[in-house]
Parts: sequence; C-alpha cells; structure tokens
Amino acid sequence: MLNISASYTDLYQLTMAQVYFKAKPKSTAVFDYYFRNNPFQGGFTIFAGLENILDILENLRFTDADIEYLKTHDFENDFLEYLRDFRFRGSIFSVSEGDIVFPNRPILQVAGSIIEVQIVETVLLNILNFQTLIATKANRIRRSAGDKILLDMGLRRAHATGGYFASRAAAIGGFDSTSNVKSAKDFNIPSSGTMAHSFIQSYEDELKAFQDFALFRPNNCVLLVDTFSTLKSGIPNAITVAKEMESRGERLFGVRLDSGDLAYLSKKTRKMLDDNNLDYVKIVASNQLDEYVIKSLNEQNAPIDVYGVGTNLVTGKPDAALDGVYKLSEYNGNPRIKLSENFIKVSLPCKKQVYRMIDQNGMFYGADAICLASEENITQMFHPFDSNKSLDLQVFKQEALLEEVMVKGKRTKAKRTVSEIAEYAKMRLSLLPDEYKRFQNPHFYKIGLSASLKAKRDELINQHKF
Amino acid sequence: MLNISASYTDLYQLTMAQVYFKAKPKSTAVFDYYFRNNPFQGGFTIFAGLENILDILENLRFTDADIEYLKTHDFENDFLEYLRDFRFRGSIFSVSEGDIVFPNRPILQVAGSIIEVQIVETVLLNILNFQTLIATKANRIRRSAGDKILLDMGLRRAHATGGYFASRAAAIGGFDSTSNVKSAKDFNIPSSGTMAHSFIQSYEDELKAFQDFALFRPNNCVLLVDTFSTLKSGIPNAITVAKEMESRGERLFGVRLDSGDLAYLSKKTRKMLDDNNLDYVKIVASNQLDEYVIKSLNEQNAPIDVYGVGTNLVTGKPDAALDGVYKLSEYNGNPRIKLSENFIKVSLPCKKQVYRMIDQNGMFYGADAICLASEENITQMFHPFDSNKSLDLQVFKQEALLEEVMVKGKRTKAKRTVSEIAEYAKMRLSLLPDEYKRFQNPHFYKIGLSASLKAKRDELINQHKF
Repeated sequence: MLNISASYTDLYQLTMAQVYFKAKPKSTAVFDYYFRNNPFQGGFTIFAGLENILDILENLRFTDADIEYLKTHDFENDFLEYLRDFRFRGSIFSVSEGDIVFPNRPILQVAGSIIEVQIVETVLLNILNFQTLIATKANRIRRSAGDKILLDMGLRRAHATGGYFASRAAAIGGFDSTSNVKSAKDFNIPSSGTMAHSFIQSYEDELKAFQDFALFRPNNCVLLVDTFSTLKSGIPNAITVAKEMESRGERLFGVRLDSGDLAYLSKKTRKMLDDNNLDYVKIVASNQLDEYVIKSLNEQNAPIDVYGVGTNLVTGKPDAALDGVYKLSEYNGNPRIKLSENFIKVSLPCKKQVYRMIDQNGMFYGADAICLASEENITQMFHPFDSNKSLDLQVFKQEALLEEVMVKGKRTKAKRTVSEIAEYAKMRLSLLPDEYKRFQNPHFYKIGLSASLKAKRDELINQHKF
Repeated sequence: MLNISASYTDLYQLTMAQVYFKAKPKSTAVFDYYFRNNPFQGGFTIFAGLENILDILENLRFTDADIEYLKTHDFENDFLEYLRDFRFRGSIFSVSEGDIVFPNRPILQVAGSIIEVQIVETVLLNILNFQTLIATKANRIRRSAGDKILLDMGLRRAHATGGYFASRAAAIGGFDSTSNVKSAKDFNIPSSGTMAHSFIQSYEDELKAFQDFALFRPNNCVLLVDTFSTLKSGIPNAITVAKEMESRGERLFGVRLDSGDLAYLSKKTRKMLDDNNLDYVKIVASNQLDEYVIKSLNEQNAPIDVYGVGTNLVTGKPDAALDGVYKLSEYNGNPRIKLSENFIKVSLPCKKQVYRMIDQNGMFYGADAICLASEENITQMFHPFDSNKSLDLQVFKQEALLEEVMVKGKRTKAKRTVSEIAEYAKMRLSLLPDEYKRFQNPHFYKIGLSASLKAKRDELINQHKF
C-alpha cells in the first residue's frame, strides 16, 4: 500500500515543474508545511505521518506507464526524460513524529530544487494532513477513555485504502490495538477482534455458536451477546460457555455489547457475570462511539473495560480534514512571502527554527518562538501582528523542534516504530498542561516571532503593498 | 494502489473463518450489501465501486508475509495452509455501478463458501461505502453547478491513498476532470490543473511569472490572479499576457480566483476581461466550495465558468461515511435474519431480487419491490412493517436491478470504464423525478416486500421472539 508512484500528485505540480525546467532549471526553494487550526476545536495537535513520508520520498519514481501517460498530455520530451530519472534529492527538517504541535508554525521544511520540492507537495500534504488528523482524534478518544482498552475497528467505514494509514495514526494517538490485519502486520500494531452477528446467525442457536467459537478460539475469546436478546439470551449463554471453558482450564476473555443502551446493559451484564463468579470476564462495548459518548459512559460508571471505535475515529469526524498547507518561504536563497487579505494567512519567509519554551518544572510553558534558522537563544518573542505584545524568553529553557531528518533524499536518522512514536507522543503529552487538553475552550498556546524574523517579514509585506 | 492483499480485512473475519474451517468447512452463505440512510439527508444515492471490487476479488491472495504474520497470532497450521491457497470463488449479483439506489434494499449479494464470503466483507464495505458516498456528494455538487465545468482538486486533503478512489467516484458523480494524475491515468479521467501561489512567488514580479507560464504552457493556460491583489495586479497582468498570447496566435484559457468574495470578484473580473475583448477567457473559482456555496454563487449570477472543489468533495463532508452493512441472509440454503430492537434494522432473509417500478412515461415511479430471487412479476408489494399499507404493481413496467456480475470468482460481464459508468449514472438520474433530487426534505422513495418475502421474514421473526 506504500507503493505510491510519483504520479500520485496534482497535475499542476507537473505543469509548473515543466515551466521551471524550461525557464529556470537550477532554481532552489524551501517550503514550509503547517496548518492553520487545531482540529476538533481542540487545544493541540499530534503530528503523524513523517516516517511514511520519508519512506515514500526515498522510493519515489515515475513509472514507465506514468511517462507514457504524460506524453499524451502536453508535456515535452526533454522534460519527460528528466522525470524518467527523477529522484527526490531534497533535504527535510521536521518536528519529531508524535510531537505536540500547534497552528501557524512550521512543522516540516523541505529544501531542494524547486522542481522536486514542488512535485512532492501533494503526497506530503495527503499523508501528513490525514494522519495528523486521525492521531489527534484518537488521542481525544484516549483522553475520554482514561485507562480503558481502546480498539480501532473502523476499516469498513474508512476512506478506501486510507484506512491503512488511519489504523497507524490511531495507534500513535493512543489506541491499543486494531482490527485491521494489514496495518497491524506492516506497522507492528497489536491486532484484535471479536465476532460478527453473522457467525451466530449461521448456527441454529446462539449457545452452540458460542461453544464452537470458544472451542476453536480459546485465547482472547470474546462473545457477541446482542444478536437475539442481550440479557435474556446472550449473557446467559455466555455464562454457560464461560463455565465450560473453566472446566477445560480456559478463561473467557469477554462479552461484547453492540447495541442498545450501553450504560444500562453494561451494568446489568456486569452484575450477571459477577453473580456467577465471572468477575474476570471483560465487557467490550461498541456502536457509534466517539470521545463524547465514551466520556458520558465513564461518567455514568458504566463497567466497560474495552471500547471498540470505528467510523468516528477513522474518518476524523466531524472535521474530516486537517487544513495543512505547504508554502514557499525561500527561493534561490531569497525570502518569499504569501500575502492575504486575512492577516492570519500571511506566510512566514526564510528558513526557520521553532523553539518551545520549557518552564522550571520541565513542562511546556505554553509558547513557541519562531526565528530564523541561523538564530539561537532568542531572548524575546513578539506577537505576530500586535506590536504591543511581547514575551521575555530568558527565564525559559528552549528546545529546538525542527531537526534534520533527510539530506539529499536519504534519511539521516534511524526509522522509528509506531510503538516508539506512540510512546513519544504520550511522553510529550505529559508535558502539556491540562488547560490545553480540555475539550471546551482550551487555552491558547502562544506563538511569537523573533525580532529578526518579524523585521524580515514586515519588510516583505511593505514591498508588496498595493 | 489496487494491490490489496487479502490481509486488508478485520482480524475477526479470520478468527471466524478458522472456526468455520474447523467446525463446518463445507458451509455456504449468502450476504447482502445495503445501507440504511441516504447520505447528506438526500433523496437518493449513486452506487459506485463495483468494478474495483470485482478487480480486487479476482486477484485476492494472502501473501507469504501475511501467512507468516498470522502464524504468530493463534492460527493453526492447517487453516493457514488453506489461506495460502485461498482464492475468492464466490458469485455476485449486483445493481449496476452508477445506478440510483435507496436505503434498506439489497445492492449487492455475495454467495459462496461461508469462509470466502466472510473474508471479503471488510474490503467490500471499505471500497463500496466510500465510493458510493463520494459519487453521491459529487452529484450534489454537479446538480448545484448546472452545466458549469467541475474540477476535483481534493487530493491534498483526501484520506491518504483513499484519494485515489475519491477522484474515480467524483467522475462517476458528474465531475469533468481531476487534478489527481494517478487516478486520471488509471481510470482514464480527464486531468486538469492551474498553477499554485508558489509559482508566482518564485518570481520577482507577477507579470513575468504569468509570461513564463504562458510561454511554456500555452494550452489550457490558467493564471492564478490573487497572489498580491486580484483586481489591482492579477487581472491587469493576466490581460497583458492574454494580449501577448493573441499576438502569438494563442488564447489564454482562464484566470483563477482562490480567495475573497467570489461573487464580487468574478463580476469585476468578467467586466475587466470583456472590456478588453477577452470574452473567451474563462473564470475558474476555488476556495472551500461545496454544493451550497456553488448554489449561492449561481443564484448571484456569478460569471464563473469552472468550479474547483477539494476538501468537501473528497472527504464527503459532513457525513464522512456511508453506513453500509453486510448481513447474512442465507446459510446452507436456509434463510437467516438479524433481529434488532430497532425494527428498521431487522435484516431481510433469503436470496432476493429488487424490482424497480417504471411508470407510463418510462420514469422511475418511486417504488422498489423486494422479493425472493425465484419470484417474477410481483403484483403487489407490502410496507415492511405497516401491514395496512400495500401497493398494486400491475400498472408498472418492472425492472430487475440485481444482475449476475461474477460466478465462481470470475467476472461474467465486460468491464465498464469510468466514463461509461458516469454516462449510465447520468441517464439513470434523468429517470428520477425532481422531487427526489431536492436538497431539503426530498420525497421518500418507497420500499415494499412481496407477500412471499414478507411471510418468510415474519416467520423468522416469530421463531426468534423473546
């Protein structure tokens, strides 16, 4: 599924590339990847997808079939021969995958020939926007769920093969396992699953279905109990099977509720199980769950041990997209800016670095300072647009967020596994104060510019005034 | 991107398959694919994804790596050897891709060994749910846009590689072209594109950028005019370049507006172009468009010729998912039913056929009758739950919607191209009366059961009463 050819791009990248190839083939450029709003009206975002992008860029090629196709679309032969040998040989500075990020500051910078950095724009946005969205959504659900077990089971409602990456991002955001075998295998995520209603329907009676399932699947056996009647049929039959398993020295892992009032049914179920000395049997719940439903179930003390989440997770509802963009900040070594009537959409010029302020307790203070890449130890940061506002940074420890991850098309750091990235995200989140984590009106994580960057930007704005 | 291995499934499909393999390996089953609600609160849905599913099923395999992975996950060797040789050898009856479909009636039926029909559930739902959602969304935008040109440019905000299928479904729903080169190539969809702000920023001035672009891209040249100031800079420069092109015997195709008030700017732009005898230069507009924004722009008589639509199209906002399900309707030749406390969620047993009622004018009357596959010429249909309601069908021409498309794992009909499917969808839509097409409170397209099917279902409901 990572077999993505270089034609997985927008046509205009190639149209522009041909003009660059003809008019100024030696030009270089730097682009910034960033987004404008935290998704889900949240207070922060978890950056995900970087390792996939590095894999994709290391292997990016136009296939012969791609070239043949482009021959019929107004491209010239010398440019197509260039594409035939095209490899991405650019360099990338990036925030670590799994780190906590915020709007309107660079997350990733790509430098190289303008042709190569432009051609990779689409796939970079495609992969990073989506996984960052889903990792952030998954973490919202994780925060609602506390230490309950979380299972991703959204593949059937995912956006076609995008589901492959959804399961990866869910693990980074804090999910424990996935039903998606392909992603579990490729990304080494724990896989898990229960049973479908159809399994039970294929038997004349529910008890026999449960018995067969337990016989041939004794480990991690979860019985789906709502096919006919959860309390009158499913749970009594599950109890019978649990006792039969005990007599064989086995243990039923759990029962799954997939309809009805989950708070009510889980309490009744827990009592029926406990009354039969089956306190070890877990309760798994599913059915259109999201962070709000899970929060409500927890507030009602629903004795649910495992939440299975599907559609709302893998589609990133209700946002469905992160508004990440890719903007030119330097061309042939000269700073570049994108203006907008909406001042918040004005881009930042130059190669940059982002410093995160760490307070005396080692926690994130709540401010990132953006400066020129050449600057160090910024002593003061300025509000991007309100010249009366500034913050003295001398009291903070400063942490550089952008690091070199690819040079001339080759990785410069060891690959990190999904579980390492998930651990890193968890560690970084532990440094973020709670006021940025709440769902309602989270605190605003400050952004500021160094004096030099602000001066450079304002100079460019003035040059382009109409 | 169609290289989907059989491990692109939910773990529980394999868990259940192993139990079937051990406990009742010769069992057969029939499953129905259907959805419960039209997306976007619309009055109908366009079925899409079938040709991809047939391609996938014809080639479905577990790779050696899949088998190695499963060895470490509680599966037994004899079952894994079975999976190593697994091929889908089932049969499929389906509605034609591109047809107009409605909730709670079978769209596709899969028959085969219970193991194979269960294993393919996930990928079938994954591909059909998503493309059906996007084709339907695309058609909403098409209906708003009238005969304006529609360009899909959503790849950067699509759900990772799901964007490959989004562009295909958009074409089926009525989009004219896509920016997505890979999809355009593989599915033979017209490709198109304009230019990015970065292209203009890479030049010292906008005019020179436009001139170079026109020089090296004279065909279908579209100039992006909002980088600095649409009316003070972009349009005057575009006019200069259009005149230069005229002097070379070329024609500027269009200008693109990507920010600001599109109604206001398009009117000003049109006037400036016309005042310079450039009435042939088209106006392309983009920026967070959807069916409602386009409807409003048309109502304001905005002189826009081409709409570029991205995020809202390819993510299927706001729904983001179609609620399609896959339910067992027959097991070893015996009817099966899934009950629910919510009567609308009770499934229909048996192999079935769906007949669409055609009125005297050859239009869809507004009713589909579901019957046993063995029935023909149904004379009366009954409301699924209100026994007082029935409809006499003798006045209608009846059209069978489900046809055989795959037998023993092989297609039985010629592949259809995306443009053929799009044409078919357009033709079928022309038979649907307007009252089902409106956005607000569309008319309800009736569903009914034949007497025999209703009797069979009610018998099963009674058998399972608690």
